[in-house]
Amino acid sequence: MNRPLPQNVPHVVIVGGGFGGLETARRLKRADVRVTMIDRHNYHLFQPLLYQVATGGLSPANIATPLRSIVRRQANCEVLMGEVIGFDVAQRRLILADDELQYDFLVLAAGATHSYFGRDEWAKFAPGLKTISDAADIRGRIYVAFEAAEREPDPEIRKSLMTFVVVGGGPTGVELAGALAEIARHTLKRDFRHIRPQDARIIIVEAAPRILSHYPDDLCEQAIKKVRSLGIEVMIDTKVTDINDTAVHLSTPNGDTVVRTKTVLWGAGVQANPLGRLLADDAGVTTDRGGRIPVTPTCQIENHNNVFAIGDIAVCLDESGKPLPGLAAVAVQQGAHVASVIKQSITQPGRTLSPFRYSNKGSMATIGRAAAVAQIGSYKTCGWFAWILWLFVHLMLIVQFQNRLLILIQWAWSYATFNRSNRIILGEPALFRKSAKSKTQDTSA
Amino acid sequence: MNRPLPQNVPHVVIVGGGFGGLETARRLKRADVRVTMIDRHNYHLFQPLLYQVATGGLSPANIATPLRSIVRRQANCEVLMGEVIGFDVAQRRLILADDELQYDFLVLAAGATHSYFGRDEWAKFAPGLKTISDAADIRGRIYVAFEAAEREPDPEIRKSLMTFVVVGGGPTGVELAGALAEIARHTLKRDFRHIRPQDARIIIVEAAPRILSHYPDDLCEQAIKKVRSLGIEVMIDTKVTDINDTAVHLSTPNGDTVVRTKTVLWGAGVQANPLGRLLADDAGVTTDRGGRIPVTPTCQIENHNNVFAIGDIAVCLDESGKPLPGLAAVAVQQGAHVASVIKQSITQPGRTLSPFRYSNKGSMATIGRAAAVAQIGSYKTCGWFAWILWLFVHLMLIVQFQNRLLILIQWAWSYATFNRSNRIILGEPALFRKSAKSKTQDTSA
Repeated sequence: MNRPLPQNVPHVVIVGGGFGGLETARRLKRADVRVTMIDRHNYHLFQPLLYQVATGGLSPANIATPLRSIVRRQANCEVLMGEVIGFDVAQRRLILADDELQYDFLVLAAGATHSYFGRDEWAKFAPGLKTISDAADIRGRIYVAFEAAEREPDPEIRKSLMTFVVVGGGPTGVELAGALAEIARHTLKRDFRHIRPQDARIIIVEAAPRILSHYPDDLCEQAIKKVRSLGIEVMIDTKVTDINDTAVHLSTPNGDTVVRTKTVLWGAGVQANPLGRLLADDAGVTTDRGGRIPVTPTCQIENHNNVFAIGDIAVCLDESGKPLPGLAAVAVQQGAHVASVIKQSITQPGRTLSPFRYSNKGSMATIGRAAAVAQIGSYKTCGWFAWILWLFVHLMLIVQFQNRLLILIQWAWSYATFNRSNRIILGEPALFRKSAKSKTQDTSA
Repeated sequence: MNRPLPQNVPHVVIVGGGFGGLETARRLKRADVRVTMIDRHNYHLFQPLLYQVATGGLSPANIATPLRSIVRRQANCEVLMGEVIGFDVAQRRLILADDELQYDFLVLAAGATHSYFGRDEWAKFAPGLKTISDAADIRGRIYVAFEAAEREPDPEIRKSLMTFVVVGGGPTGVELAGALAEIARHTLKRDFRHIRPQDARIIIVEAAPRILSHYPDDLCEQAIKKVRSLGIEVMIDTKVTDINDTAVHLSTPNGDTVVRTKTVLWGAGVQANPLGRLLADDAGVTTDRGGRIPVTPTCQIENHNNVFAIGDIAVCLDESGKPLPGLAAVAVQQGAHVASVIKQSITQPGRTLSPFRYSNKGSMATIGRAAAVAQIGSYKTCGWFAWILWLFVHLMLIVQFQNRLLILIQWAWSYATFNRSNRIILGEPALFRKSAKSKTQDTSA
C-alpha cells in the first residue's frame, strides 16, 4: 500500500544518497517535514569497501543497498532517481534533467569525484575509484593484465603487464596496493602456466614524504614496514609527470624515471562534484580549489539559511580554522547536525543555531591481508588486531543485515582459502586485445 | 609454482568453457594429452541461474566461476582467454584474433546466442538472456521501469512503464515472468509512493498453443494454472509482429493487437554461435537453419575425425532421428563422450567408436516463488516440492562450495523477507531519461 506523504509541511530536498544525505533523511524521520532524497543511482554505496569490489573480494550488491529499501519505513520520505542539473536558490527551485522541484530546505550532499590536477587525459589510463563502474573497470584491468601476461611472448611487455602502479599513498591507494599484493601472491598463485603471478611488481607512488600521512608518525612507520613486508615498493617524494598506455613517468628525488606498466590506478586527487560549483555560482559564493562550497559553522551557505552543503562537496572549518577531512564520519555527523538545524528552524525560528562540531571517533585503514592501522582517540595500533577492529566496525556500519552476514561469510572463506570469488571480467577486454599486438617503445626504469 | 604442461602428447583444444567444454576438459584429466581451453570470458557461467541475476536475486559472481580456479589442479590443462575468429581444419590450426594454435583434436563447444528470426532490429528493444551483460541490462530495465513510473505524471505512459512483456513461453520466459511477478507483488510492494508495483501487468507471449511445451500435457496444465495464479497473463497462439520502444504488436487468434510497454524481454529464439557456421564452411558441411553443425553419432564432424562439436552449437540426432534438445545435461554428457572418444582414438586407434546416447535424467523449471515443474523419468510433479528438488539439484551442480553456501543463504533470506538484494541499476539509465520526455502515440491494446 502507498502511505500518503505528509502535506502542507516544509519540504526538505536532499541531493545525494551517500553517507551525509542518508543520515540527514533518517534524522528527519520524526520531524514535521516532507523529505525528498534525489540520487542519480538507486542505491546507497558503502564506499569504504569499494576497493574490495575493485579487487574481486566482494560483489557490487554486497556494498550497494537500494535507497528505497533503506527508507522504506520512513513515512515522510520519498526517493527519486534523477539527475540534478541546476539550482535557483532565489526561487527555491531545484532543476532536474527532466523536471523541477520546489523546496523549503535544500541539502546538497553530492560528494566528490577524482581529480587529475588538470591532466584529465590521464583518466583513461589511470582510473580512479569512486563508483561501482570504476570498481568493475579496475577489476577488469587487474585480471586482464594477468591474462594478457600469460599469453604474451615478449618478456619486456610481459613485465610491463605484471607491473601495477598505484598513484597516491592515502588509505585508498594503500588498500588497493595491499589487495593487489594478496591477489598476486596468493589468489592467483596456482592459476597460470606461463607466468608467476607472485612476481608481479606493485608500486605505490606518493608525492609527499610519507604514506597514510594523516596518521601519527609512529603509526606511519609501522604501516610503511607492513606495506613493504607485502612486497610492495613505496616511492615517496615522487611526482607523476606523465601517464600513457605503456608507462608512467616519474620525477623522484634521484631524478626522472619511467616505469613501464599497463595498469595504473589513481588514488591521488579528489575534487567536489561539479554540482558544488553550480550551487556556489547561483548562491554567489566562491568554491575552493577543489570545487568545494564554503559553508558556515552551521553547514549553511552564506546568506541562504535554507541551503546546506555537507560531506565532500563542502568545506567546513573546525574550531581551529582548519578544513575538516573528507571522511564518511564527518558527512554522517554533518547530516545529523543539519537535520537538527532544520528541525530547530521550523519549531524555534530565530533561535541561535549551534555550530557543527566534528567528534573524531578515530580512523582506520587496511593494509592487505589481515593487517590495518587504527587510531581511536589516543589509542594507536597496527597489525592483526587493528584489522579485526576494522572488520568489526565496517560490518557494523553496513546498512543491511543480509549484506553483513554474506560479507562475513565471504571474508571468512577468502581468509581461509586466499580465494577471491568475484574475479569475473565483464565486457570487451580492450587491453587484452591490444597488448598482444602493440609493441612498446619506452625503455624501462 | 608453475607445473610444466606435458610435452610430446596429443594437443586437445577446446573452444568454450561452458557445460560441454568444461566437462570435456575435466574428463581428460588422466588422459595422456595436453588440453587447452579457450574462452572469450575468464569464467564458466552457470546459465540455469542467469534469470536470477537478471531479476536481482543473485550477483553475477554467484554464478560465474573463474575457469582457472576450476581446472587449477588439472596438471595437463591450461586456460587461455582469447577470441576465436577462424578455423583451418586441413592444417589443424585454430585462428585467434591475435594468435594461432596447432591442435591434434578440436572440440567446438561455443554454445548459442539469441535469434530474432531475422528481425535483429528488435534486439535493442527486447534483450535476450545469454550473458552476464544481458542479465545486467535486463535487471537495469526492470528496476528503471519502476523508477520511471514513480516519476511519470501521464497515466498512459505510467501504465506502459508498468507493463512487462516476455516473448517466449519456454523455461527462460516462464522463469523471468515468475521472477517479475515476485518483484512486483512482493519485493517492491512498499518501496514506492506514487505507484503500486503490485499493479504491474506481466504478459507471456507464446506462438505455440502451450507454454513449457516440452513437458507432458498434464504438467503443462498445472504449470499454466500456477503461472496464472501469480497474476501473469499468458497469451498462447500469439505471434509478435513488431517491437518498438513503446509497444509490442501482436497477432492473436482474435486478431491483431498492440500492447504498450517499455520493457520487452526476449526468451523466444536461439541460434548457434556464429563460429558454428565458420567451422561448417571450413569443414565442408552445412549447418541447419539455427546455424548448428551436424555431427555424427560420435559427435564428430563428417570426414574430420579429429574435430568435434557438442552442446548448443551442434545438432546431434538421437536413436529415433530427432535432434537432441539444447540442454546443459546434453552438453555435459556429450563432453564426457567426446573425452572418451579422444582417449580411445589415442590408445586404441582404429577400434569402432561407440555412438553418443543421451540419458535423460529429467528436467525442471521454476515458476516464480517456491514453485516449479519437474519430470524425472516417469515421475512428474508441479509445485512446492518440485521447487525444493530444483533448488537442491541446482545447488549441487554449482561448481564452487562457496557459491553454493552463499546462494543458499541468499535464497533463504529472500524467501523469508521477499527481498532481492541486487537491485542496483548500473550505468546510465537511458530509458529513465527518455521516458519522462517522450510521448507515446500508440493507443493501448
